Amino acid sequence: MLKFFVTSKDKKARAGYFETDHGTVETPAFMPVGTQGTVKAVNQKYLEEIKTQIVLSNTYHLYLRPGTEVLEKAGGLHRFMNWQKSILTDSGGFQVFSLSDLRKVKPEGVEFKSHLDGSTHFFSPEKVVGIQRSIGSDIMLVLDECTPYPCEYEYVLNSAKLTSSWAAMSKEAFEKSLPLYGHKQFMFGIIQGSIYGDLRELSTADLIKLDFDGYAIGGLAVGEPVEIMYDTVDFTTSMMPEDKPRYLMGVGRPENLLEAIKRGVDMFDCVMPTRNGRNAYLFTSNGVLSMRNAKYKDDFSAIDDNCNCYTCTNFSKAYLRHLFIAGEILALELASIHNLNFYLSLMRTSREKIIEGNFSEWKSEIVKSISLKNKINPEE
Amino acid sequence: MLKFFVTSKDKKARAGYFETDHGTVETPAFMPVGTQGTVKAVNQKYLEEIKTQIVLSNTYHLYLRPGTEVLEKAGGLHRFMNWQKSILTDSGGFQVFSLSDLRKVKPEGVEFKSHLDGSTHFFSPEKVVGIQRSIGSDIMLVLDECTPYPCEYEYVLNSAKLTSSWAAMSKEAFEKSLPLYGHKQFMFGIIQGSIYGDLRELSTADLIKLDFDGYAIGGLAVGEPVEIMYDTVDFTTSMMPEDKPRYLMGVGRPENLLEAIKRGVDMFDCVMPTRNGRNAYLFTSNGVLSMRNAKYKDDFSAIDDNCNCYTCTNFSKAYLRHLFIAGEILALELASIHNLNFYLSLMRTSREKIIEGNFSEWKSEIVKSISLKNKINPEE
Repeated sequence: MLKFFVTSKDKKARAGYFETDHGTVETPAFMPVGTQGTVKAVNQKYLEEIKTQIVLSNTYHLYLRPGTEVLEKAGGLHRFMNWQKSILTDSGGFQVFSLSDLRKVKPEGVEFKSHLDGSTHFFSPEKVVGIQRSIGSDIMLVLDECTPYPCEYEYVLNSAKLTSSWAAMSKEAFEKSLPLYGHKQFMFGIIQGSIYGDLRELSTADLIKLDFDGYAIGGLAVGEPVEIMYDTVDFTTSMMPEDKPRYLMGVGRPENLLEAIKRGVDMFDCVMPTRNGRNAYLFTSNGVLSMRNAKYKDDFSAIDDNCNCYTCTNFSKAYLRHLFIAGEILALELASIHNLNFYLSLMRTSREKIIEGNFSEWKSEIVKSISLKNKINPEE
Repeated sequence: MLKFFVTSKDKKARAGYFETDHGTVETPAFMPVGTQGTVKAVNQKYLEEIKTQIVLSNTYHLYLRPGTEVLEKAGGLHRFMNWQKSILTDSGGFQVFSLSDLRKVKPEGVEFKSHLDGSTHFFSPEKVVGIQRSIGSDIMLVLDECTPYPCEYEYVLNSAKLTSSWAAMSKEAFEKSLPLYGHKQFMFGIIQGSIYGDLRELSTADLIKLDFDGYAIGGLAVGEPVEIMYDTVDFTTSMMPEDKPRYLMGVGRPENLLEAIKRGVDMFDCVMPTRNGRNAYLFTSNGVLSMRNAKYKDDFSAIDDNCNCYTCTNFSKAYLRHLFIAGEILALELASIHNLNFYLSLMRTSREKIIEGNFSEWKSEIVKSISLKNKINPEE
């Protein structure tokens, strides 16, 4: 079992840590997304410099490219990408249901066509465990069906039952198999049920019975109103074990993370800091800045005076704007480093505030400034 | 005057150094190209890590974007891009004659249309000096006309005369103006004359009279056979002052640099290490590798065992191939860092060998292995 310790609580918000063979992960934790074995535009040295403790990578993508044969020959993903800290891999479920066409869902798994070349593949719960053994991620996730929003109650009910069934098959395959590279691997279940309280309850109960190392909340941040997301998170965490990490998948904006922490979530991943960074949107303590804006043309101040990242300590808004306007690759790196550091710093400060016991007060204040977009930059 | 010292000679090959207010530049020197105030895909920290002593940036591009107003407000290019070592800027002549349409060459300068938006601009020798004052480069170059290859004798004759006339106007403008940022600026003349010996002679004589801080050889590496380039370099350097740096513009492949060093050249710039890197071509001590090649799929060795760069000490051929095949930005950074380090290391070793007095022997050997492309990778 994964060693997870909640060391402080501030109402529902939790500060803690867990340990893998690749180090300690302090929670609340944000996992930079390294879909294809690299966090886009940020090299491994900078990931370490911004104190990344765990990255997420994608089973679906790694299975297609470079493939399990290469990963096994490399000695697993840690060695392949030269990343010595923790790695969590999602199950591929989300990608199968969002990226690939012509999928056929069956009780024993899902058939899909590769988004790369249209070739046909089949993911069973057992196969997905096997792929994650080849990857060697510290934490693997079970195959699930991620329902879209909105989605009919009946569909969600059957889907949640299927996800529960797949979870049981996954757990069995996990227990029957062994890690390949000498370090321990752990497994999280994924709670589905869309926005239906009783289905979230059903899914949570099913998964808890299987006694996973941690539990993910899936099927959110897929288009539902943010208040419904918060309510669903709040309701779901209230049923989840106290002594296991809680991971809200694919969320979100900085303020979404803080609201979810308030509701008892410990772990997050999202492409937003890197993707938005590549699109010239920079998260700062004073709101979101669009670096293509002409007003930064001769603004030689740092992106964020409160930030100690490589970008902010070395370069100005004017330089970053120039790089974006000129289409330079360096813009992508500098923006991504800053945004990731912003997310990771936000998690570290949240943790401190929970330990100090004034998370809620701090959150109310900080949410005002970090989401100031409209007030400070009306034209963006 | 620029302080330049030739400390060792091995036949025509020279080892030396010069000093700007931004540090010592050891020669033979390779200047990574930072066209728009950034070396593509490589941040300033890695440029320092690979011991870059001087970068080249482009007057034409910087004039169009971000423009002299922004550069002046920034306090010059060094501060704008946060680069504390030396910067050389070319005059924009090459870009005007290669990138822009509808140019009109007149005795007093050249009218051209921006390749970005078609707007009309005029570069006079004086204006180009002024732009380089705004940039604050340690070494500026005079406006010249770069002739294409092949080019009629008559055209080259008139063009070389025009370049000489512009050089005189540039020198006068340089002497009449002052640096803007408290550090000294120097100026190099550019020798033209295409492949015509007597015109190279004429151009060299004209420029020497103007007593520049150094001399560039322009108008080569524009499509002429490599032996003609070598002969022209050999002939031209034999007429150039011993006590001034000699800069061969826009050259070239690693073996071209070594052949030019043998013929008395001290400085180089070329987009090849970065551009070829971004196209997955890696220069190594065992020849050029095409990283997209399927044979590297499960080759977990370093790109070059003899290389100590970030890329080679951390990542494998298989990982780099995966990044290229998957279209990941990290591939561009890792390849560019390696290729630049290869070029810079080659210059450092050349310098050592000249000092030791066995440059020619070493060059003959190393050229065999670094240009092994066809023997080692027949399918590329």
